[in-house]
Amino acid sequence: MSETQPDSVVRTYIDTHRTAFLDDLAEWLRIPSVSAQPEHAGDVRRSAEWLAAKLKETGFPVTEIWPTPGAPAVFAEWPSEDPSAPTVLVYGHHDVQPAALADGWHTEPFEPVVRDGRMYGRGAADDKGQVFFHTLGVRAHLAATGAAAPAVHLKLLIEGEEESGSPNFRALVEERAERLAADVVIVSDTGMWSETTPTVCTGMRGVADCEIDFHGPDQDIHSGAFGGAVPNPATAAARLVAALHDEDGRVTIPGFYDGIAELSDAERALIAELPFDEAEWLRTAKSHAAAGEAGYSTLERVWARPTAEVNGIGGGYQGPGGKTIVPASAHLKLSFRLVSGQEPYEVEAAVRDWVAARVPAGIRHSIVFGAPTRPCLTPLDHPALQSVVRAMGRAFGQRVRFTREGGSGPAADLQDVLEAPVLFLGISVPSDGWHSPNEKVELDLLLKGVETTAYLWGDLAEHWKPATA
Amino acid sequence: MSETQPDSVVRTYIDTHRTAFLDDLAEWLRIPSVSAQPEHAGDVRRSAEWLAAKLKETGFPVTEIWPTPGAPAVFAEWPSEDPSAPTVLVYGHHDVQPAALADGWHTEPFEPVVRDGRMYGRGAADDKGQVFFHTLGVRAHLAATGAAAPAVHLKLLIEGEEESGSPNFRALVEERAERLAADVVIVSDTGMWSETTPTVCTGMRGVADCEIDFHGPDQDIHSGAFGGAVPNPATAAARLVAALHDEDGRVTIPGFYDGIAELSDAERALIAELPFDEAEWLRTAKSHAAAGEAGYSTLERVWARPTAEVNGIGGGYQGPGGKTIVPASAHLKLSFRLVSGQEPYEVEAAVRDWVAARVPAGIRHSIVFGAPTRPCLTPLDHPALQSVVRAMGRAFGQRVRFTREGGSGPAADLQDVLEAPVLFLGISVPSDGWHSPNEKVELDLLLKGVETTAYLWGDLAEHWKPATA
Repeated sequence: MSETQPDSVVRTYIDTHRTAFLDDLAEWLRIPSVSAQPEHAGDVRRSAEWLAAKLKETGFPVTEIWPTPGAPAVFAEWPSEDPSAPTVLVYGHHDVQPAALADGWHTEPFEPVVRDGRMYGRGAADDKGQVFFHTLGVRAHLAATGAAAPAVHLKLLIEGEEESGSPNFRALVEERAERLAADVVIVSDTGMWSETTPTVCTGMRGVADCEIDFHGPDQDIHSGAFGGAVPNPATAAARLVAALHDEDGRVTIPGFYDGIAELSDAERALIAELPFDEAEWLRTAKSHAAAGEAGYSTLERVWARPTAEVNGIGGGYQGPGGKTIVPASAHLKLSFRLVSGQEPYEVEAAVRDWVAARVPAGIRHSIVFGAPTRPCLTPLDHPALQSVVRAMGRAFGQRVRFTREGGSGPAADLQDVLEAPVLFLGISVPSDGWHSPNEKVELDLLLKGVETTAYLWGDLAEHWKPATA
Repeated sequence: MSETQPDSVVRTYIDTHRTAFLDDLAEWLRIPSVSAQPEHAGDVRRSAEWLAAKLKETGFPVTEIWPTPGAPAVFAEWPSEDPSAPTVLVYGHHDVQPAALADGWHTEPFEPVVRDGRMYGRGAADDKGQVFFHTLGVRAHLAATGAAAPAVHLKLLIEGEEESGSPNFRALVEERAERLAADVVIVSDTGMWSETTPTVCTGMRGVADCEIDFHGPDQDIHSGAFGGAVPNPATAAARLVAALHDEDGRVTIPGFYDGIAELSDAERALIAELPFDEAEWLRTAKSHAAAGEAGYSTLERVWARPTAEVNGIGGGYQGPGGKTIVPASAHLKLSFRLVSGQEPYEVEAAVRDWVAARVPAGIRHSIVFGAPTRPCLTPLDHPALQSVVRAMGRAFGQRVRFTREGGSGPAADLQDVLEAPVLFLGISVPSDGWHSPNEKVELDLLLKGVETTAYLWGDLAEHWKPATA
């Protein structure tokens, strides 16, 4: 409520604490919590301990380190004084991608520096900076309300293995589901359209992937002696790939699109009003052309349409020169991006049937699926989404637009297990260099993130009374 | 002519010299002339020297060792006393495949043994045995005619790099074309249908092969962020492969079949009368089904029809597990078996055009062809072929049938450079184990080879007066 959280109080509070906040973030960035590198396992633990201590210092009455078979997660909880307030679970991660000066960093990746209004360092944007804005944010919220506790029941779950594929995350969430129970999940591990266009992400695609092996002759055989008279498993693999799409770029697997809600005119209009520059997008994609399902724009294709993609194909002789064989085997790695309405296990069954029906006589095949990730989609009229949009609009002083993400993430596990809608609140921008050398965060945007959360909890408590509360 | 070469004289001569002949062959087999293994380079030279000396002892007035940048070839010449007699060039090779006891040999591969009417040892059939029957054969021919020189101008070219892909062979033939000039080339490096079905091979397929590289994004890109909106080079490669054939298994490249003479009813009847057992053929092929161009039998497909075959395909991630990328590149290795009437360079041009027209926007490609091998086909009514059939029929006492080979060989270089028809005279059988452990030659068949050539030179001189003679 703007009455109890005057924006000037919030801004003054942030200004006053800005230096200490940035110093603290820099201290955290100095811990090289690289989850993919076993030699940094101690650093990942140290990062969890550092964060837990900082959250305690922030005021969270409950801070815990949750071990996993891999790296530990941090959990914190700060209940509202109003028992009927909504419960919000914030998700982020405290582990980071590997980084070394030799990769092209201008300064040491784990010695953060502030230059030209940016803080450079591994994890500045992905994801320590975006986790950290919640600490000063909740303090600014309290400064504005004068209350001793936030207006919502606030929980944080900050995992330590996101950059390693979150191998233990779902099990952790399932095991701790009662502690994590929430009315809404807010994921702070995405970004905005650009420095000048604040946006809220409203969905991520899901993904299902499989490996298919094709076995033809019992060994590579002579293409002179036998070629033209026996089936070739590499040809079988290639024909399957070629048959995946029709001429309009639509996936041909029967049932693949079942259950998908078509984009509404309103949703298409929201996407179309973004200042999209296809040439710039292609430069980012490092692709030399755009291509995809007919009838959809590039953004619609990557955000709102499911795909079938060949991630890898192999078979026969791949060394230098030629080798005149009919190969004994071939293999495919396919992945399917999924959108809201698609059930991964139904897609898997459809793929299995479609493949089995197309493999020719004389070729044996096997197909193995990995664990799928479900798609997430926040309905545009969800009250919590409206609160995020309002809070962000106040912080940025601009109309907030909507994006989605084409990728897939562990947020879907939270949605599945906790049966709560997922929202995305991030202030990172495409130039921040996630997973690249010279990762940075824009300090102005980081502080807008602080300000957004300072407004958000009050707005949410005021406008939303979830049935379960 | 049967008058001047009574079969009994030939047979008695062979019986008398059989033991010495086999002892000599065994001595040659003891030289491990493995051209593919640099440590045996000295043995390959020793093999050439041994053969040259033996040919001199046989009576060839000219025996020479022809060096190449690799292993040496042996050339021998024995002119007829009749200047108008046809000139015959016999082709074979004195190098052998690698072999080691550990590969599954029952006895040392380079310590030949005779057991159950067979001589076991590396090179017994491929190709020393089949080169060597020409030595006793020409002596038996002279014994029968009582002449001091063969009825034809006889030349032998026995190369030393066939098992290494004959890298220097064409250049050698081009350089020595005048010395090698012949009215007909007889290749003794193939086989017969079976122990009980003597056959003459009348053709080999040619081959053209290429590598095609496809480049999409400048690096592997995230299939979540970009998938569905950019072209995938692995998909492009797969679609090309899938488009190679129509539903009838015919190659779709425009012009591919241009110039090919369809099999005549007579030719099809000759193939159909062979005692072909498809189940047995599939066991040999190690394939679990037969498949190919509609309207042709398996033997017609491998002997008389051109093909397009994927020898290798690769692109994207091929390691364990999954990786959700749109790959930066993909590659294909294709080979095309060619039959008489197809010009390799025209096929190459057709393939280039067809590929270029099918690669989608945003994918760059490059295509590189290897050196092609032309197909060979002996017309069934060629007088030299008729002589071979008669000579073989006399030796075997059976009707001689016709086969072809699906593979491709250096014989085509002789045909091209010397502009002479190529015939195939071999007595090896499928069970001889070429390139496998326990290679052997059937002694009865080996001596039938001796006998065939003992009759052949006289028959050829009697029935054929080439225009150039």
